[in-house]
Formats: sequence, C-alpha cells, structure tokens
Amino acid sequence: MSQRTRVQIFNVSRDGIGAGSDQSLEQPFGHVDPGDLFGWAGATANWVNRSDPGGSRGIEDYITRDFTRNIGAEIMGRNKFGPQRGPWPDHSWEGWWGEEPPFRTPVFVLTHHPRPTLVKGETTFHFIDANPQEALERAQAAAAGKDVRIGGGVTTIREFLEADLVDEMHVAVSPHDLGTGLRLWERPEDLTDRFHLEKVALTSGVTYHFFWRR
Amino acid sequence: MSQRTRVQIFNVSRDGIGAGSDQSLEQPFGHVDPGDLFGWAGATANWVNRSDPGGSRGIEDYITRDFTRNIGAEIMGRNKFGPQRGPWPDHSWEGWWGEEPPFRTPVFVLTHHPRPTLVKGETTFHFIDANPQEALERAQAAAAGKDVRIGGGVTTIREFLEADLVDEMHVAVSPHDLGTGLRLWERPEDLTDRFHLEKVALTSGVTYHFFWRR
Repeated sequence: MSQRTRVQIFNVSRDGIGAGSDQSLEQPFGHVDPGDLFGWAGATANWVNRSDPGGSRGIEDYITRDFTRNIGAEIMGRNKFGPQRGPWPDHSWEGWWGEEPPFRTPVFVLTHHPRPTLVKGETTFHFIDANPQEALERAQAAAAGKDVRIGGGVTTIREFLEADLVDEMHVAVSPHDLGTGLRLWERPEDLTDRFHLEKVALTSGVTYHFFWRR
Repeated sequence: MSQRTRVQIFNVSRDGIGAGSDQSLEQPFGHVDPGDLFGWAGATANWVNRSDPGGSRGIEDYITRDFTRNIGAEIMGRNKFGPQRGPWPDHSWEGWWGEEPPFRTPVFVLTHHPRPTLVKGETTFHFIDANPQEALERAQAAAAGKDVRIGGGVTTIREFLEADLVDEMHVAVSPHDLGTGLRLWERPEDLTDRFHLEKVALTSGVTYHFFWRR
C-alpha cells in the first residue's frame, strides 16, 4: 500500500476562512473563535483532548477517531507551531500543546529559521527550511510506510494543494461567515478538476467536505 | 477504557428489513439482493473484500475503514455462518467467506448445535449454545480488552438489544422498501428511549443511523 498525503479535520467558515491574520499568543486563531470552527470535534467521545468520559459517538466521532489512523508523520506551518515571526528570540517556546502534544509522531515544522529538534512527550518536532516536495519526502521517510498528515494552517495546505501533493482532504465547513482572515478557498468546487467532492450535511449545521484524487 | 459492544455496518431497507426469511446456499440473504443493501460499502477504498485499487474515500470509507478498529471478537447468529438448520449433517461447511474470512478475530457463533472449533485463516470460529449475556462474557474474555462486534443477523441483533447489551450501533438504511423479510425494527425511533440517534443522509440515498447509549 502506498503512502498517502492527507488533510484531516481542517476547519473553515462558510466563506472559507480558517484563521484570522492577527494571530497572537493569546489568540492562536486571531479574531476567529476556534470554538465556532471546531466545536463539533470537541463534543465527540474520541476527541484527542478529551479528558472526561462521555461525548457523542455519531458520525463526528468516526472522524475524530480516524485522526491518528495510519498516520506516521505530520507537516505543519510555523504559525501552527507558534505565534512568533522572524528569527526565534530563544528556544523557550515549545508549542501550544503542553507536555504531551496530540501528534505522537515526527512533526516537520516549515520555517525559514530552523532550530534544534524538540522532543516533547511522544512527539518529535523537526524544524526545516524546505519546499513542499522536500518536506514531504522527509516526512514520508520518517513515517515508516504510514501516511503523512498535512496539519495546516491555511497557508501550508494551500502550498501543498498548489504543488498537487494532497491525495485526500477532509474539511469541516461551519455555518458562520467570518468575512476576513486566511482563506483556504474561494469556493470548494474550484478543486473538483482534480478531486472528487462529497458533501455531507450534519444536524449541527456543519458540512463535511471530503475530497479525494480523481 | 471499558470494553464496548458495537454493531457496525449493519444494513436494512427503508422498511427495516435486513434479510429475507428464505435463506439458502444460493441466496444468503434470501429474496433480498445484498447489493441493494450494502452496495455503498463495496464502493469504498477500504472495504474488506476489495481486491483492486481505487474506490471512494468520502464518508462511506471512514465507516468501512473503522470496521476492524479496536474490535477483539465478534458474535454472530448461526444463519450468518451458514444456511443449514437443525443438527449439522457434517462439518464440511466452513462459512461463506473462503479461506480468509474478513473477521480476523475469535468469532462466537450462536447455535443450539455446537461443533468443534474451526480455525480458518486468521479467524477462529467457536460454536456455542449460550444466551446473549453468556456469549458476551465469553467474547469479552477472548477480545483481550478490545470491543466486541455484534455481527448480526437481524435476530441476533434484536436479542442483544432486548437484553440491553448494545452500547452503540451503526445501521445503514437503503432507500428501497422490501415489504417482507426479517425486520430489525418497526421504526428506528423506537430505540430512542435508550439511545441517542443521529441520522446522516448520503447523496447515494442511503441514510446512516448512529445510535449510542444515553
């Protein structure tokens, strides 16, 4: 079985916005309330950050419990890792996720300012200055035969789509418009020249968009 | 994490029928065309019986690739194993599935006519004369901490529902009426005293029904 490159549980507004452009330490998603975008995932029984029992076990839970299935590495943009821009002032920033980040695989952070590899719990962060093709080759080698997740944010996913390196993609579209911010697409149908598109409407108002290569 | 008892990828018609009552060697589902009920599953990339590449990777594929996740044993009725009734004439019948049945776990076949344990590929069939509670205890012990799938058919699932032993259930309802046959329910809403029910309509016309315990 070949290694696939997958986007999973990426969340945008009805008008295609995945985050505000005004990211800060206090607001990882800028002016965008992340609860508006991925509250559906937090409500499920198998959400990675759930610490209490309970949670829903319908279709949303099939999606969240698939998050780690056969994933051997993740690639993320620097802004998913932290709010800093330019050279790192020091290496004290170790991500948003505390002592046990939910990735539990090698993670490749794309940055023009490499820094030493960081081991945090079961996750190892590598900081690399590379184009999408080079980054994917490194991630595939680290994934030991498993698939590679493109973890976001918006800019990173767009770069991988433009390089035609994505095999499948699950995007949850919330029922709210945000107006301004970082935009994944103008219209999801713009991708149907290369991808099948299946839309599934949930009772919550969220619409799942599943893309897979034609 | 406690062991859960799950029904997954069970298929019925719009009027709740899962199989004809006239099962035979030639027609495992009696007068019911199984393609009408679970053609959606066969179209997916990760369907257990798929031998060629290709297949869809939308929501249906999330369901089929979850089929084996964390399952340690299955319980099935005798009529899922074979078309015979009453005492076994001999032990030459070894199931519908050929040399490599898709279960790959211990399987407990409920029958009033026990026969010796059968190892077939990676699957081991145990034939037991037991009530649902006893069968579940044996399956849970064999599952080594993983969940137990109630594999059907209709009569077996009804028995486990009546004994209140099912924690969650995924049923795909096709858009066709069948009129006669073995009926899982009069109406799915009859189960909502004990279960949450989420319905998700697919573009194919199939409606997934997800139940999980309140």
